[in-house]
Amino acid sequence: MKNRRLRMGMVGGAVGAFIGPVHRMAATLDGEAELVAGAFSSNPAKSRKTGGELMLDPRRTYDSYREMIAKESKLPPGERVDFVSIVTPNASHFDIASAFLKAGFNVVCDKPMTTSLKQAKDLHRLVRKTGKVFALTHNYTGYPMVKQARHMCGKGMLGKINKVVVEYPQGWMAGFITNPGNAIGMWRMDPKIAGGSCCIGDIGIHAENLVRYITGLEVEELCADLSTFVKINKLEDDGNILIHYKGGARGILYASQISAGEENPLSIRVYGTKLGLEWRQEDPNYLHVKDPAGYRTRYSKGNDYLCPEAKGAARLIWGHPDGFIEAFANIYREAYRGIRAEIAGKRMPVCDHPTSLDGVVGLAFIETVLASGRSRSKWTRMKS
Amino acid sequence: MKNRRLRMGMVGGAVGAFIGPVHRMAATLDGEAELVAGAFSSNPAKSRKTGGELMLDPRRTYDSYREMIAKESKLPPGERVDFVSIVTPNASHFDIASAFLKAGFNVVCDKPMTTSLKQAKDLHRLVRKTGKVFALTHNYTGYPMVKQARHMCGKGMLGKINKVVVEYPQGWMAGFITNPGNAIGMWRMDPKIAGGSCCIGDIGIHAENLVRYITGLEVEELCADLSTFVKINKLEDDGNILIHYKGGARGILYASQISAGEENPLSIRVYGTKLGLEWRQEDPNYLHVKDPAGYRTRYSKGNDYLCPEAKGAARLIWGHPDGFIEAFANIYREAYRGIRAEIAGKRMPVCDHPTSLDGVVGLAFIETVLASGRSRSKWTRMKS
Amino acid sequence: MKNRRLRMGMVGGAVGAFIGPVHRMAATLDGEAELVAGAFSSNPAKSRKTGGELMLDPRRTYDSYREMIAKESKLPPGERVDFVSIVTPNASHFDIASAFLKAGFNVVCDKPMTTSLKQAKDLHRLVRKTGKVFALTHNYTGYPMVKQARHMCGKGMLGKINKVVVEYPQGWMAGFITNPGNAIGMWRMDPKIAGGSCCIGDIGIHAENLVRYITGLEVEELCADLSTFVKINKLEDDGNILIHYKGGARGILYASQISAGEENPLSIRVYGTKLGLEWRQEDPNYLHVKDPAGYRTRYSKGNDYLCPEAKGAARLIWGHPDGFIEAFANIYREAYRGIRAEIAGKRMPVCDHPTSLDGVVGLAFIETVLASGRSRSKWTRMKS
Amino acid sequence: MKNRRLRMGMVGGAVGAFIGPVHRMAATLDGEAELVAGAFSSNPAKSRKTGGELMLDPRRTYDSYREMIAKESKLPPGERVDFVSIVTPNASHFDIASAFLKAGFNVVCDKPMTTSLKQAKDLHRLVRKTGKVFALTHNYTGYPMVKQARHMCGKGMLGKINKVVVEYPQGWMAGFITNPGNAIGMWRMDPKIAGGSCCIGDIGIHAENLVRYITGLEVEELCADLSTFVKINKLEDDGNILIHYKGGARGILYASQISAGEENPLSIRVYGTKLGLEWRQEDPNYLHVKDPAGYRTRYSKGNDYLCPEAKGAARLIWGHPDGFIEAFANIYREAYRGIRAEIAGKRMPVCDHPTSLDGVVGLAFIETVLASGRSRSKWTRMKS
Repeated sequence: MKNRRLRMGMVGGAVGAFIGPVHRMAATLDGEAELVAGAFSSNPAKSRKTGGELMLDPRRTYDSYREMIAKESKLPPGERVDFVSIVTPNASHFDIASAFLKAGFNVVCDKPMTTSLKQAKDLHRLVRKTGKVFALTHNYTGYPMVKQARHMCGKGMLGKINKVVVEYPQGWMAGFITNPGNAIGMWRMDPKIAGGSCCIGDIGIHAENLVRYITGLEVEELCADLSTFVKINKLEDDGNILIHYKGGARGILYASQISAGEENPLSIRVYGTKLGLEWRQEDPNYLHVKDPAGYRTRYSKGNDYLCPEAKGAARLIWGHPDGFIEAFANIYREAYRGIRAEIAGKRMPVCDHPTSLDGVVGLAFIETVLASGRSRSKWTRMKS
Repeated sequence: MKNRRLRMGMVGGAVGAFIGPVHRMAATLDGEAELVAGAFSSNPAKSRKTGGELMLDPRRTYDSYREMIAKESKLPPGERVDFVSIVTPNASHFDIASAFLKAGFNVVCDKPMTTSLKQAKDLHRLVRKTGKVFALTHNYTGYPMVKQARHMCGKGMLGKINKVVVEYPQGWMAGFITNPGNAIGMWRMDPKIAGGSCCIGDIGIHAENLVRYITGLEVEELCADLSTFVKINKLEDDGNILIHYKGGARGILYASQISAGEENPLSIRVYGTKLGLEWRQEDPNYLHVKDPAGYRTRYSKGNDYLCPEAKGAARLIWGHPDGFIEAFANIYREAYRGIRAEIAGKRMPVCDHPTSLDGVVGLAFIETVLASGRSRSKWTRMKS
Repeated sequence: MKNRRLRMGMVGGAVGAFIGPVHRMAATLDGEAELVAGAFSSNPAKSRKTGGELMLDPRRTYDSYREMIAKESKLPPGERVDFVSIVTPNASHFDIASAFLKAGFNVVCDKPMTTSLKQAKDLHRLVRKTGKVFALTHNYTGYPMVKQARHMCGKGMLGKINKVVVEYPQGWMAGFITNPGNAIGMWRMDPKIAGGSCCIGDIGIHAENLVRYITGLEVEELCADLSTFVKINKLEDDGNILIHYKGGARGILYASQISAGEENPLSIRVYGTKLGLEWRQEDPNYLHVKDPAGYRTRYSKGNDYLCPEAKGAARLIWGHPDGFIEAFANIYREAYRGIRAEIAGKRMPVCDHPTSLDGVVGLAFIETVLASGRSRSKWTRMKS
Repeated sequence: MKNRRLRMGMVGGAVGAFIGPVHRMAATLDGEAELVAGAFSSNPAKSRKTGGELMLDPRRTYDSYREMIAKESKLPPGERVDFVSIVTPNASHFDIASAFLKAGFNVVCDKPMTTSLKQAKDLHRLVRKTGKVFALTHNYTGYPMVKQARHMCGKGMLGKINKVVVEYPQGWMAGFITNPGNAIGMWRMDPKIAGGSCCIGDIGIHAENLVRYITGLEVEELCADLSTFVKINKLEDDGNILIHYKGGARGILYASQISAGEENPLSIRVYGTKLGLEWRQEDPNYLHVKDPAGYRTRYSKGNDYLCPEAKGAARLIWGHPDGFIEAFANIYREAYRGIRAEIAGKRMPVCDHPTSLDGVVGLAFIETVLASGRSRSKWTRMKS
């Protein structure tokens, strides 16, 4: 039972950030939560400016996440935040998330969960130990038609899955190849902030997560070819990966930030013995079902014939496009079910959102890719 | 300056309604407003149930809009709602909107504004007299790429506009042709609730509004062929209209609810002497610019080269789909600029949302279409 | 039984013409016919030049169609042409076709068949009297997926058809609106050569023919709005038409030559009580079947599940695009079945190509449209 | 100067074959050649039946290619075939082509040219020695928009090319995974007839050739993961390949025959520092040019702004789809320029068709892929 709005806190997401506002809109879309506190930047002035623009109570706009933990913890249970959303650059996720968990707060965290597999495992253990909700925003799994694809794979409608092609090309770094000066200061290219990977850590792991969510396939070994085209990038900006999944399926996964002219066309194609499937993030309200007989059926969001998960994930009926924010909001909505149970001291329900376990697999994937890349694309077993 | 969230009230939009929840999500998407009161149904129990699910203060869940006006008016200025969203069936818009305006509240109202041109004019006069904000949710004008299309037409980039084709086919009533029993009780088919028109009043006026918003063209005369395929429908469910716009452009506008298998593909094509344009609601983040030289350029949302209005209307960068709710929210965001000015007693800014004037034109269009339809498609001058 | 290639003659189609080469490629694509004679232009030098480029025997390159008839008639039956393809501008079709039929030749003729309904009827009577084959190249009916659409309508798979939207916008005249000088001398704008109609006669009748071929629907009455945007055009270059089909279906048909940036997107959408269909000429190898339940199936050419007519009309398997020429060649291939029967003195088989009867309906349609256009879009009964 | 039709002979292509009829239609589409002789099958009865259906002179329907060479060679120069098209399964190409070349005939040969790199080199040497025309039908290079892509890459419009993704998934073997019995006897799976590769040799080399034709990039080394999903297949039916091109570009090339529900969607995406390009075989008349600024321009066939090669390769103007056969015919048309020069004893012009050198590279590619595949995807230098 929902008898009140959840109180949300945020770390990161100052004015001008990209993902912070997305989290805020997604978190409050359904009227289930309200942002009441935040440490929006490591720069106190910037944090306060953001709090002001968000019309927050100035007393709950903090100068640091540590201050936030300290002061929120002292508020009465009926006032303090129920959960915190962490939307800072990668390298700080581990410390911040750990601190909030230890202080008894539920956590929603942007991906990648940490910058090392070791940290990921530690954090995962901490999550289990504390019993708090931890939701990782692999947001693409929130799209209704992704859920329909998962349903069809899970029900065996494709037969045995033999091949998966997942791709995530972006082009926004292409211009930096000839004008590297424009890229100066980009944290995604800085191992100290981004971790050991640029392209794979930023978008490649979305692709891996999407495959796993839809098909259930787990990487057995992989063979990665990583390149850096932007000179001042200390990390890779293009990665092409061959994959052997457990059970025999073959895969191609690639991610790129130098594919000039591409926006955000994450896509996945899954081929079984009975059917093929295709889903494209830039046209997210459709799922294309390919029949070997030679016709192809476009399922569309918001219709009655879809599985309950797909139907439930659509906020609008057919023909009225749900977008990125709505998919993102589905991660939050599922997290809220857990958070409400946690608050009420009830048994944790099964919630359809990525967890710290997905975070562990994501970091294992990144480290395996980097290892293979360093070894001239040698087949490398998935770390665990 | 935004120093607080606006307080929103709602009339209509009980549990199970389609458009009410859309208004709620759109209104609060940007964190600028909060729903605090409502009369969600003419059935008090249903209203209270809805208030409960929305976690409202039970004291502000009202049994009728009249009660809502009476009680909200007595609240201190710092508590009472700043505006009300009216999302009831068509026939009640006029009374409800008039009552709230007279009581000093700003109004957001779903379309069609009223069920007669006379009412529309009366309401428009009332809006002007009260000086309150009145926003009409012709939501399709909220899409970023619609604003880009408007910009390009306005700047003369198309040359002189000669031809417009706008279409709004839906198929959800097609099944009622053979199974009319399933349609029993549908208010859209009942002139007492829907007004004099079903298909044109529900969706055709969106098409007319879209043409006017993008091109600035005004209907001079039209020639309408209206049909009813669903037997128990007392109004039309298919309308095909030829249009002469002022200044010489020719148009086709059609709306249909019996186009089996269509979801919500409102689309517009505009042809000038220099360029053609195409926009499609089901794929809303793109605008297709057709060059007579034989190439076609797809503009996409969230990019720097777009006009300020299109850029400002996108919540997310390129490749991250904005959807129906975000477009809808743009109507609210613009209305809020007016409402904040009204509250602050400042000069009303120019706000980019449909107004009561659009409501008047919409009703004039409906009545002209009905008149032409009754006269066996005689060319009929646009009423005014 | 095919024991020899048919001998083809051609009237019109000199070097530089558009449709002449299409006929030549289409007629010979399957190795069933060979071009052996021609009067390619009313300008003898141009005719001879064309014959030379086509590597014809100079003795069979004629200065006029009259000379061609005279000389070919004197050749022994084993040498003279079996049929003639008439690809001249509209106004000469009647005389040329009549002369060849009277001289005992089979005829393939481009559309529109004649420039008046009276001529069309006369020619149709002559065809029946002579018993010769007369094929009219409404080539769009040759596409495999158009045949599948026809099959599905004919079998009642759509239920009762209630609505048809057929459109044929082109943009190539848009530039002439501001630069009329570039259009000087265009025969399509000259009533003496084109007949009474430009846009409808050139492309609108393809649209009408396509509707009739696919759905079997016949126009009962229509209401036409015709415009001329190119100043030096003596005929219409934009036509928007509302249609009442016999049996109650409603339709919109429009054709335009001033829709800037459009190439050749003839398309048709048919809506029945059970299903909707869509076919687009610029993407011709697919047929889109729209189910009211909210999914849509794309049938594609060259697959086993299609009807025999669609399968037979594809020259290549799935995924290997058939194009305009192949569709055109299907008209010829069907005509050849008739021509071979005629030569063999056998009973005429049922051949799937447009005939002189389609020519009569086409001219009736043109004249009805023009009559309605002249009477300020009055509903006008289809002439017959 | 074309003063006569070329005389064409064919080896292979009996009734029921797929590619033989394509060659016949393509070869004669422009009226430049006529099929006059053939050895259509190693089964004499089948060869004669085919000759009969093609209405050939029975004396020139041969029981074997050896008989064809012997008898055609004895015909007077003005009667014997000018060239022969070889459309038999792979393993026989080498012997047949060699024999015809040695006997003084020009050759058009289907791909792959031979079944070993050694044979390919020998054949290439023979071609050079004899001075005859040898055209290899990598037909996809015949599409107009592929030529436009090549033009743009060659002119540097993309800047430096950094990434290429080329894919060729088919699904027609997917059904054999669960029903292998249906695949019994398929020559493509038999190393004795197909050579050492199934999927790569059949379609992968089209992909390699397409990349090279468009971009000019040459494979430096590659890393291949080959799989066999159809149990009775003795060769691979799925191949995923990472590529390092000379000069630093990275690539992914994959070909598959078990991608359920895919028809023939060969596609290529090329990313440079300035622009991206995309072309898709199933929608061949468009080229998509992706600008990093965030818009994308669709070039379409048959327009004036295209490069001369693209314009010349289109048989029809804009909006009138050219298909697979027309692209195929462009290979022939270019070969004819060479053949006519060869016959006339003139200097060989530069002809835009794949040659025996492409055949050598194709076989080198296949053998390199197989070698890498056998060595657990080790990076393997391109053989030469």
